[in-house]
Amino acid sequence: MTPRFDYHPPDFTAPPLSGAPDARFEPAPAPGVLPDGFFSTTNLPTYVKVQGVWRRPRFPRMDCVIVQDASGALAVTEPRKVAAGGLVALGASEDGSGGIYVHVEGFLGGSRSANEFRFMQAEVSRERPVDYTLLAELLGEEKRRGGKIVWVVGPALVHARARQDMMWFIRNGYVGALLGGNAVAVHDLEAAIFGTTLGMSSSGEGVAGGHALHMRAINAIRRAGSVAAAVRSGLVTEGIMHALVTHDVPFVLAGSIRDDGPLPDVVTDSQAAQDAMRAHTTQATFAVFVATALHAIAVGNMLPAFVDPADGADLRPLTTICVDQTEFVVTKLRDRGTHQAYGVVTNAQDFMHVLRFYVERWEQARTPASVGH
Amino acid sequence: MTPRFDYHPPDFTAPPLSGAPDARFEPAPAPGVLPDGFFSTTNLPTYVKVQGVWRRPRFPRMDCVIVQDASGALAVTEPRKVAAGGLVALGASEDGSGGIYVHVEGFLGGSRSANEFRFMQAEVSRERPVDYTLLAELLGEEKRRGGKIVWVVGPALVHARARQDMMWFIRNGYVGALLGGNAVAVHDLEAAIFGTTLGMSSSGEGVAGGHALHMRAINAIRRAGSVAAAVRSGLVTEGIMHALVTHDVPFVLAGSIRDDGPLPDVVTDSQAAQDAMRAHTTQATFAVFVATALHAIAVGNMLPAFVDPADGADLRPLTTICVDQTEFVVTKLRDRGTHQAYGVVTNAQDFMHVLRFYVERWEQARTPASVGH
Amino acid sequence: MTPRFDYHPPDFTAPPLSGAPDARFEPAPAPGVLPDGFFSTTNLPTYVKVQGVWRRPRFPRMDCVIVQDASGALAVTEPRKVAAGGLVALGASEDGSGGIYVHVEGFLGGSRSANEFRFMQAEVSRERPVDYTLLAELLGEEKRRGGKIVWVVGPALVHARARQDMMWFIRNGYVGALLGGNAVAVHDLEAAIFGTTLGMSSSGEGVAGGHALHMRAINAIRRAGSVAAAVRSGLVTEGIMHALVTHDVPFVLAGSIRDDGPLPDVVTDSQAAQDAMRAHTTQATFAVFVATALHAIAVGNMLPAFVDPADGADLRPLTTICVDQTEFVVTKLRDRGTHQAYGVVTNAQDFMHVLRFYVERWEQARTPASVGH
Amino acid sequence: MTPRFDYHPPDFTAPPLSGAPDARFEPAPAPGVLPDGFFSTTNLPTYVKVQGVWRRPRFPRMDCVIVQDASGALAVTEPRKVAAGGLVALGASEDGSGGIYVHVEGFLGGSRSANEFRFMQAEVSRERPVDYTLLAELLGEEKRRGGKIVWVVGPALVHARARQDMMWFIRNGYVGALLGGNAVAVHDLEAAIFGTTLGMSSSGEGVAGGHALHMRAINAIRRAGSVAAAVRSGLVTEGIMHALVTHDVPFVLAGSIRDDGPLPDVVTDSQAAQDAMRAHTTQATFAVFVATALHAIAVGNMLPAFVDPADGADLRPLTTICVDQTEFVVTKLRDRGTHQAYGVVTNAQDFMHVLRFYVERWEQARTPASVGH
Repeated sequence: MTPRFDYHPPDFTAPPLSGAPDARFEPAPAPGVLPDGFFSTTNLPTYVKVQGVWRRPRFPRMDCVIVQDASGALAVTEPRKVAAGGLVALGASEDGSGGIYVHVEGFLGGSRSANEFRFMQAEVSRERPVDYTLLAELLGEEKRRGGKIVWVVGPALVHARARQDMMWFIRNGYVGALLGGNAVAVHDLEAAIFGTTLGMSSSGEGVAGGHALHMRAINAIRRAGSVAAAVRSGLVTEGIMHALVTHDVPFVLAGSIRDDGPLPDVVTDSQAAQDAMRAHTTQATFAVFVATALHAIAVGNMLPAFVDPADGADLRPLTTICVDQTEFVVTKLRDRGTHQAYGVVTNAQDFMHVLRFYVERWEQARTPASVGH
Repeated sequence: MTPRFDYHPPDFTAPPLSGAPDARFEPAPAPGVLPDGFFSTTNLPTYVKVQGVWRRPRFPRMDCVIVQDASGALAVTEPRKVAAGGLVALGASEDGSGGIYVHVEGFLGGSRSANEFRFMQAEVSRERPVDYTLLAELLGEEKRRGGKIVWVVGPALVHARARQDMMWFIRNGYVGALLGGNAVAVHDLEAAIFGTTLGMSSSGEGVAGGHALHMRAINAIRRAGSVAAAVRSGLVTEGIMHALVTHDVPFVLAGSIRDDGPLPDVVTDSQAAQDAMRAHTTQATFAVFVATALHAIAVGNMLPAFVDPADGADLRPLTTICVDQTEFVVTKLRDRGTHQAYGVVTNAQDFMHVLRFYVERWEQARTPASVGH
Repeated sequence: MTPRFDYHPPDFTAPPLSGAPDARFEPAPAPGVLPDGFFSTTNLPTYVKVQGVWRRPRFPRMDCVIVQDASGALAVTEPRKVAAGGLVALGASEDGSGGIYVHVEGFLGGSRSANEFRFMQAEVSRERPVDYTLLAELLGEEKRRGGKIVWVVGPALVHARARQDMMWFIRNGYVGALLGGNAVAVHDLEAAIFGTTLGMSSSGEGVAGGHALHMRAINAIRRAGSVAAAVRSGLVTEGIMHALVTHDVPFVLAGSIRDDGPLPDVVTDSQAAQDAMRAHTTQATFAVFVATALHAIAVGNMLPAFVDPADGADLRPLTTICVDQTEFVVTKLRDRGTHQAYGVVTNAQDFMHVLRFYVERWEQARTPASVGH
Repeated sequence: MTPRFDYHPPDFTAPPLSGAPDARFEPAPAPGVLPDGFFSTTNLPTYVKVQGVWRRPRFPRMDCVIVQDASGALAVTEPRKVAAGGLVALGASEDGSGGIYVHVEGFLGGSRSANEFRFMQAEVSRERPVDYTLLAELLGEEKRRGGKIVWVVGPALVHARARQDMMWFIRNGYVGALLGGNAVAVHDLEAAIFGTTLGMSSSGEGVAGGHALHMRAINAIRRAGSVAAAVRSGLVTEGIMHALVTHDVPFVLAGSIRDDGPLPDVVTDSQAAQDAMRAHTTQATFAVFVATALHAIAVGNMLPAFVDPADGADLRPLTTICVDQTEFVVTKLRDRGTHQAYGVVTNAQDFMHVLRFYVERWEQARTPASVGH
């Protein structure tokens, strides 16, 4: 975007444009109804060859058709305004081979080719379908090959009652390490001890005295000495932290400026916490980030874009799934260099629920039918 | 918020504060470990009765405890900084009955009561758990009582491949009318005819010539004359619009300034479209808005907050579920007067998937086991 | 929201409703044109007194009028559909005193009063006007009274070229302490040394080798030993950090898991960083949070809701301004107990620019014209 | 993203890599301090030539350095962990010419070149600086050359008290046509007649009976017959609509399903409204979209990407500025083909204020000093 712009029309005297045929036209079968194979316009400079001459139709815009009137003039026209019998240009190709040329390079830069105009180029959007079947397959195959799947999770995962699903993934071998902060563990432990998170019941209602319950949970764990000790003593009998301890899955809780407590397990020095996390990221073969901007960017910075298999096999991309409520975190992650991040723009609770459903289905499909006896 | 603020301390000479006991203190059992029943602070003016005198501790902040030092002075202290044996104030009540009084009215206005400090007051938030069990029960019961469930849907519902779930709800009697715009129908019909939406395959990949496919779908329907005619002729054999036609569920497609085409069924005059929609909203007993700001606000404006049962039963609220990717639309709906809207902040695709799952489960739970014969 | 709802109609036999007059009606002067003083409907249960009888009109919805037809029936009607001469109910009061009663309590809970239906109740919204005149006055008066204004800032403030404005506030005595993280200082120092932030020029273009420039800036400061040493040595000659050092404004940079470097000034232990920040928050009399979720929540947790003046004057609220691009951070801050936060939903760069403009204007208005002698 | 990935290492036997020199190393001058000119890593596969052999260092990640230990092994290391005297690889080039090669094509696809790793690639982000100086220059030059600047505005522009700024642009010749809906005009007229918008005063307070004021404003205009008639009759004496009428600037108000009223000027048929808008877009040479998703997409669809000057001058891009509170609308606009949109992610009120400030400054700079004699 600059006040100076130097437009060079295409060279119609050189191949392939010099050899292009005239564009074809066909009459509309009824008012506002187009002939099959109509050419659908873009908003870019467009040239149509008529009787050997390349012409630019008037009134360009996208999602219209090109109509030739009795005088031979060409106009970009809304389909609903085409009269019965109106001559409508035909074609699906934008490279001139059918007599119509869309001049993409002139406006979108030299790296684009013809037939470039398209919708939905942004790679991260709430409007893109999420291919849960593929995500489940990738996750399932990574588990089968014995990879190390690192999860990086924020407290919204616990708020949102996706705890059961996270526990399921831990118990079923899909979690090689869990990286997070004080808050995710505190909320999980408050839920384990008091049945609430930040004083809210699982159906979202506030409870009396609720605002202090996370402080009481922290105090109970501090008294026990550690999360593992609280599990061993029977204080904590379920939940994400309980599942990690009982399944020997390592976790790192990095301290932050906003921590209450913190829990005894928190690594309060940020450099020590980075070292503890990197001990896992150097081994990681797959990463899942759920609902955490701070830790997603932090771990994203630590992760290579690829896996270098120990067995000498070829490099492969290190699949990184990043789930957040808005496009912003995923885009930021890519902006900071984690180009391989596969963004899922949704609510953490729903993501966990649907992903587990698809992984369970993938597992069932892989299970050989029990042989009939 | 104003530069003038007139603070009136509580009247400690009048009941009930005049009769309050001294606050109780107990020593910390270990460094950074609190006695059970510690009082957890808020950020509001707080008074503690010690030896008959109400005092305000120094350094107020939330999520801390009140410690009395050797000189008798009170300080708000982070739990991790409490020494072993440090005297920590006890109590869960904030109304003075335990010797500690949090002065809420002074800062939050006269309408609040004691024990008011709490988290998560906002009623719409991505961090609130969604009670799908309750939503499914409400929807299921509405169907059983023969209510008219009006769905208002935006095109993201189709982009996001929740088509199958929407079709399930239509086929199973959960849809009394569908209100939307040209785009939701166009995307559904493009998917039915070409297998794409806006030129993207169901796994999110672009296809060649994809940008024109919605225009080709529109043209095909215009040629057929109407959506119903396209279903009858066999041009459209599946999808949301197909399900509506084959299950005799009425729909209204309101025109808008951004429509391509539009489809022959679109009511292009906005006043006529309002009338067509209101013919349904006056009969509505339940409403679900998914991924549409424009139509959600429009239909929200038309809906009463209550149902007036034809059988003379009592009025009841007209349950209105509003699903959107951000808090903004739901908050806006409430700001414009639809106070009863129950907000779900998530991705349309995931919402539909999870809701259907819970509704299916609710139905199964209602089905009497078939008796064995 | 629950399947059971117990509606109690108002008691029309008791005062004040028992003494209410009949509602008044007046004919519409032209088709679709209402008489002055028409009653505008809400979506709540509404009763109209006609010939001594309270009746509920059919087809309730908001933003309509109540029309009585020839048979005496009442219907809620869109204004555009009122015929010339149609009898339209009049009144602005919703408490029955004019013969029309809107039953608010029945639906919105007992704490609401009549005349309660209104728009724009949400206290934080991009659609609310920001009263910069008031913000400037509050900030200006706080400076005049010698208060301690604590700023908590995120790196977007530097990205967005609001550096010049932040420097202006520092130089002019509006900053008592600056609290932030490694990133805000790194971006500022990269700008001071290389003229870029994250490798982007001030007009938003990438520069060659830009991705490493923040690492080179960090290395230069590490070599110098501290930010202050880098200022003294002449390495850093302008910017936010430069202004802080040269104006003796204290700052705290708290470490986090995502830090590069970090700078030598960063307090890497999160507990030590909390202590360093709280040394400032206990003295704070005003707070401004700009573009930082992590630090805003952290410092919000540390701040009291009120100022306790050292001179024994009355308590007053501790004004807290929270600026963010979305409603989410501000709402979250309130959800966590910082009820006094005044939310401004906008871009950090624009906020700084406009706020400075208004503060400059406020200062000019306070300056007495120099008298000519 | 697919389970199959075929990695081909670079061909080190062919030029230019075959002729690359060994990488250079230099000792760190102090612990955690790097030599000048250190090579800063990316997360992509990276090869370093040592003694004639290309090797991949262990533990790849971004924002680190490559250190050779006593045994000759290479490891990617955080700068803070480099010992004094540690041998650190040097270089800024990633194409192998300095003995270090970052294999971009292997992971980011064939269209990328070396030295490709960079931050902030997303073209629309709240974190990108907005170059208001450039926007003001573009707008100013367009006015000087007599272009037609089309504004497309949403109601948030009026809510947010940017009315005065919009009026300034109209009065000073920066508005060739204004396209919008019923709401933006209704809010402006409510403000003109009652001093409120949606019942809120300009400082954001609700007023008694406020929820009906927009209905009363609509009724007053309907009684007058049109906006222009209301201006002529003295009913409307200021505001955006007043400025349009008194400066003979054409406007189009397109009807929508959510309109109250509507105003008599609204084109309620969406096809007629499209035609009315396109009559302006075919003449447009510049476009500004403020705070309107619906109309921005609609008009974006109608606009060509370029201007075809009537005087036969070369084509030039049709500058399109799109202002919204979130990245979503701008990204969506581009996703639908308006690639030339320049996105500004901010609050409408602040945008208008700052843009006007810069345009005023641009105008002053163009004004020749009045010659004093």
